[in-house]
Amino acid sequence: MSQENVTPDLARERSKATFDVENLAEFMIGGRDRLKRKRFLQNIAIQDPFFKKQKSWAFCSVEEQYDMGLSKSIYIQKKLQEMGITDMQEAFYYREPAMSHENSPLDLHYGMFIPTIDKQGTPEQKQKWLHLSESLQIVGTYAQTELGHGTFIRGLETTATYDPKTKEFILDSPTLTSKKYWPGCLGKTSNHCVVMAQLYTKGKSHGPHMFMVQIRSMKDHSVLPGIEVGVIGNKFGYGTNDNGFLSFDKLRIPRENMLMRYSQVHEDGTYVKPQNAKLAYGSMVLIRSSIVSDAARGLAQACVISIRYSAVRRQTEAYPGGEEPQILDYQTQQYRLFPLLASAYSLQLAGKYVFNTYLEVNDQIEKGNLESMPELHALSAGLKAFSTYEASAGIEVCRICCGGHGYSQASGLPKIYVDVVPGCTYEGENTVMMLQTARYLMKCYSRAKQGQKLPGFVQYIGQNLNKKSCMSEEVALGCLVMAYEHRAARLVEAAAMRMQSLIQGGKKQHEAWNGSSVQLLWAAKAHCHLFCVKNFVDAIQAKSLSSKTATVMKSVCQLYGVHGILENLGEFMQDGFFSGEQVGYLQKKMLALFEDIRPNAVALVDAFDYPDMVLGSCLGRYDGQVYQALYDYAKSAPMNHTEIHSTYYKHLKPLINPETTSDAMQFAKL
Amino acid sequence: MSQENVTPDLARERSKATFDVENLAEFMIGGRDRLKRKRFLQNIAIQDPFFKKQKSWAFCSVEEQYDMGLSKSIYIQKKLQEMGITDMQEAFYYREPAMSHENSPLDLHYGMFIPTIDKQGTPEQKQKWLHLSESLQIVGTYAQTELGHGTFIRGLETTATYDPKTKEFILDSPTLTSKKYWPGCLGKTSNHCVVMAQLYTKGKSHGPHMFMVQIRSMKDHSVLPGIEVGVIGNKFGYGTNDNGFLSFDKLRIPRENMLMRYSQVHEDGTYVKPQNAKLAYGSMVLIRSSIVSDAARGLAQACVISIRYSAVRRQTEAYPGGEEPQILDYQTQQYRLFPLLASAYSLQLAGKYVFNTYLEVNDQIEKGNLESMPELHALSAGLKAFSTYEASAGIEVCRICCGGHGYSQASGLPKIYVDVVPGCTYEGENTVMMLQTARYLMKCYSRAKQGQKLPGFVQYIGQNLNKKSCMSEEVALGCLVMAYEHRAARLVEAAAMRMQSLIQGGKKQHEAWNGSSVQLLWAAKAHCHLFCVKNFVDAIQAKSLSSKTATVMKSVCQLYGVHGILENLGEFMQDGFFSGEQVGYLQKKMLALFEDIRPNAVALVDAFDYPDMVLGSCLGRYDGQVYQALYDYAKSAPMNHTEIHSTYYKHLKPLINPETTSDAMQFAKL
Repeated sequence: MSQENVTPDLARERSKATFDVENLAEFMIGGRDRLKRKRFLQNIAIQDPFFKKQKSWAFCSVEEQYDMGLSKSIYIQKKLQEMGITDMQEAFYYREPAMSHENSPLDLHYGMFIPTIDKQGTPEQKQKWLHLSESLQIVGTYAQTELGHGTFIRGLETTATYDPKTKEFILDSPTLTSKKYWPGCLGKTSNHCVVMAQLYTKGKSHGPHMFMVQIRSMKDHSVLPGIEVGVIGNKFGYGTNDNGFLSFDKLRIPRENMLMRYSQVHEDGTYVKPQNAKLAYGSMVLIRSSIVSDAARGLAQACVISIRYSAVRRQTEAYPGGEEPQILDYQTQQYRLFPLLASAYSLQLAGKYVFNTYLEVNDQIEKGNLESMPELHALSAGLKAFSTYEASAGIEVCRICCGGHGYSQASGLPKIYVDVVPGCTYEGENTVMMLQTARYLMKCYSRAKQGQKLPGFVQYIGQNLNKKSCMSEEVALGCLVMAYEHRAARLVEAAAMRMQSLIQGGKKQHEAWNGSSVQLLWAAKAHCHLFCVKNFVDAIQAKSLSSKTATVMKSVCQLYGVHGILENLGEFMQDGFFSGEQVGYLQKKMLALFEDIRPNAVALVDAFDYPDMVLGSCLGRYDGQVYQALYDYAKSAPMNHTEIHSTYYKHLKPLINPETTSDAMQFAKL
Repeated sequence: MSQENVTPDLARERSKATFDVENLAEFMIGGRDRLKRKRFLQNIAIQDPFFKKQKSWAFCSVEEQYDMGLSKSIYIQKKLQEMGITDMQEAFYYREPAMSHENSPLDLHYGMFIPTIDKQGTPEQKQKWLHLSESLQIVGTYAQTELGHGTFIRGLETTATYDPKTKEFILDSPTLTSKKYWPGCLGKTSNHCVVMAQLYTKGKSHGPHMFMVQIRSMKDHSVLPGIEVGVIGNKFGYGTNDNGFLSFDKLRIPRENMLMRYSQVHEDGTYVKPQNAKLAYGSMVLIRSSIVSDAARGLAQACVISIRYSAVRRQTEAYPGGEEPQILDYQTQQYRLFPLLASAYSLQLAGKYVFNTYLEVNDQIEKGNLESMPELHALSAGLKAFSTYEASAGIEVCRICCGGHGYSQASGLPKIYVDVVPGCTYEGENTVMMLQTARYLMKCYSRAKQGQKLPGFVQYIGQNLNKKSCMSEEVALGCLVMAYEHRAARLVEAAAMRMQSLIQGGKKQHEAWNGSSVQLLWAAKAHCHLFCVKNFVDAIQAKSLSSKTATVMKSVCQLYGVHGILENLGEFMQDGFFSGEQVGYLQKKMLALFEDIRPNAVALVDAFDYPDMVLGSCLGRYDGQVYQALYDYAKSAPMNHTEIHSTYYKHLKPLINPETTSDAMQFAKL
């Protein structure tokens, strides 16, 4: 990034750094070549006059945001084709500066509609629809959730009833609550849609299945008969996306429109069920690992913005007559921001781990080995919840740490927040996700109690809980990991004991589960937290880190571990695992780590390597020229295009009596 | 509220309640007469066709929001005058349904500009400006913060230099960072402004003083020479408000425009300083107490919405084939919502206490007794921070608890959030506020150590810390209060000890303060938390509560106390105050309290007595008809006014090849 025009405060911060930013940036992305490639692709987008000339999204109405989003998305797709880029990650690099935290109306077309045809369609279906979809003649989305139904798919009400006489399915929305509601790309963009509906044939229900439905005319985009479709109205964010509703009035579609790769309905209405229902787990793991990475990226960007700004912003003389210090020198600011910086690193590493493990496990599955899937599936569910909670809350802390200016869209932070926080809900509501993880942990616990050996990362479950922490003043990484293992093991056991005692007290299984679910949440959270700590500790042993970088990252990792304990201290103390004295060590260490990290804080956020166009923030600029940028942002606001706003003539002027007022009241001498 | 058309789920909830909702509603507002009066005034607004015909703010552009905000504000003012309402609280009742969580562009005119003239102006100045301001001929605001300067007033850069030759002040913005930035009402609305600027006369600086400046012409609203003014651009929320920037290029204003009630500059330039600078504390306390109440109200409304919706929403069969339960029956949902419900009650009661105490203390001050002010000032600063943090985070939890629909503006929750969360920043940044409280606590601690008796509520400071909790399975209120006192006393002492040891280690006072500030934050937070618990316990002893209501409120109060301990458990355990066994009691009690509160949950939010128009939420409706409301909201979205959006012609149609596509692909038989 250009060193020109960098404010003295930021230049000094960078010169103070004790490690090589490039070394860490390469490590985080996975090597020098990839970093170079990322920058190369990002720069193509950054230099492109098409993106440069776009109006700032912050000054667009929702309709303009949608228009711009669609226009950019189509342009991006064309460019990717021209460049011959098919790799998802490479496409993301190119797209990131062009549509940072803007949700493309085509996300579901590329991310769900096409992959679903590809994975769930027969060869004939793929031939019929894939090419047209890839060339954007067919634009489609994936419609699952309904007005009254979310995460629980079996509760869906839309029906698809087979009529053997005409060899058609009759799609119907029998109730208000059965209307499809929320799918992106649905309201105005899509002409087709994959619809999840309850399959009925020969008078029997066979649960949810997928159907291809054309919803708008290919001739003129008009809505086809039997269909009602529209947008669901404005949201917290996602202005670029036409999230929609959709309902069917006994709409008939050909039998061939059911996606029949795994289940089939024969012409006579005979239902053939799929061979292995668990294969769908793979793509869920993939999506959830990408949510972990999205959340981590949002938090990392928020840290870049707030930490750079905190190095530029000066506030309140420390002593009468003294210079106003950089607010990053306040211990309280470090206390709020540095643990989040550590979290951002930890979550990025966790996302990377889950993605890489997914690739390995997928290879094994192709070879017929499904053994590692349950552990990874459980981890990815919990981590999705853990990371989106942590990141969303953290982004808001970063925003508030920027004071008043954090509240302006100029800071870029509100946009990051409204983009990341729905990750707590979509693709599996977070509480449900945590309880899925807990269910797996309970299985592991009962296996451990039966003396079975547990796989990989869950081996800590069922360990002896009668021990004390090895924590000393030095705060060794090993003692941190041991503490998190102990806490997770204890909370898993406590949840299992609670379940058991409720069942022994006469509760039914599902009542006992509900009556233990708060403790199950605690256990699942502790499990995910442990994973993040352990994975962080493992990751920074990498040989590609120079010794200077490794030293800095060790501090960041320690802070992640120490702060996490202090924030959840009761869970580590309830059984006497930590003594009060050891807690004192941790508190002292945390404050000492703030001082260790302080000189490298700006370099640590630089190493995330986000160009200014990705951050989209006046406060987070690499050059630190925040005040000029804020002023320019203000000047560019459409309301400033006229000196006198129309409201004056409508509302204010009628109140003014020219007889009693005059400009001479002040400017007698003008 | 109308019982017509209430969903069976909500009707059943209400019939199950064990206490009289009216009794609690009267208690919370301060008596039956006041409740009646509130409803009377609210209903006038609710019935008024002027408000009914307004477009939903969620579908307005920022400019439309501003226009609507100004128009409504002027209308409200006219109506209040017609009704002869001058009491602030009564005006608020009327205004609340009309502009719920919409920030009037005139808020600063009425809330700061007029009161400042009134309190800081000489009799002549008041005569000159007050009447014109009250009739909205002069519209003004209060400009203090600058692009580079916030909470720290002495850091302001705008200058007002007296020129005895012309008997004028020269107002100047010497730097980019000196531009006024953020004041509401400034960008487009105001024609006058009270400006805080550094006073220079006879070559000497006298610190910040206030000046009346006309910024736009009374004839045509054009910007006057020497002035640059405009809006600062879009924000997270506050769309109705034209927050602006303002700068001066050596603007000359008459000497008489300095507000001279307390300090004066004579014609020859002689400066006369004010007699008592501390009198300004009173209005700060008042503003901060109102922020506590605002935060509490936002959280309470979020609880109404999420708890009513959780009683309507059904999700995931508890056992195969079972009915989908109301999500309020899930322990995890109770765990997230019920403690927030308890917080909402606690914060409302805290806001009430501070306001009432302010009135008392103000009386005493009028009688010359300033003794109680420091304690109240410190409490109000900390509570402002404590309440805005708690409420903002809680509102987001409520929103996320509503699943996907919480993310729609239809839920009303995003609007409440963006309205409440800036309270963490304005009127004193929260960290700064907490440290103000901590400074007072440190003074108290040192007084206590010198054997002096402390006033009222801070008497716990310096108490003997060598004791254990009296907590038993019953979880007595007294033991809860004692626990919070012990924790606060311990954290105050720990912060004082840290300060002391840093100073003994050779640090300067301000370095020691900064090096202890994390622990000072902890101490201040514990102090505020203790206040909220103790005040809650005291409040529910009121005779006006029926015994049934008191029983329910005792459970809510216990939950507030128990949950707060479990969330901050380490701070209660580090010194062995609680045993692990006692923590077990608290955990068990928390789960038991969820079951106690569950039957009354809907009644407890009904008792906040917010009409639907105040909530502005499809999910929080009194009648529970949430799905119809969501569908109606969607249908009313402007993008649904046309079947085919213009983007189709611009972006999608050009991609479609009519030769390769046809509607016959699906509807062969249409």
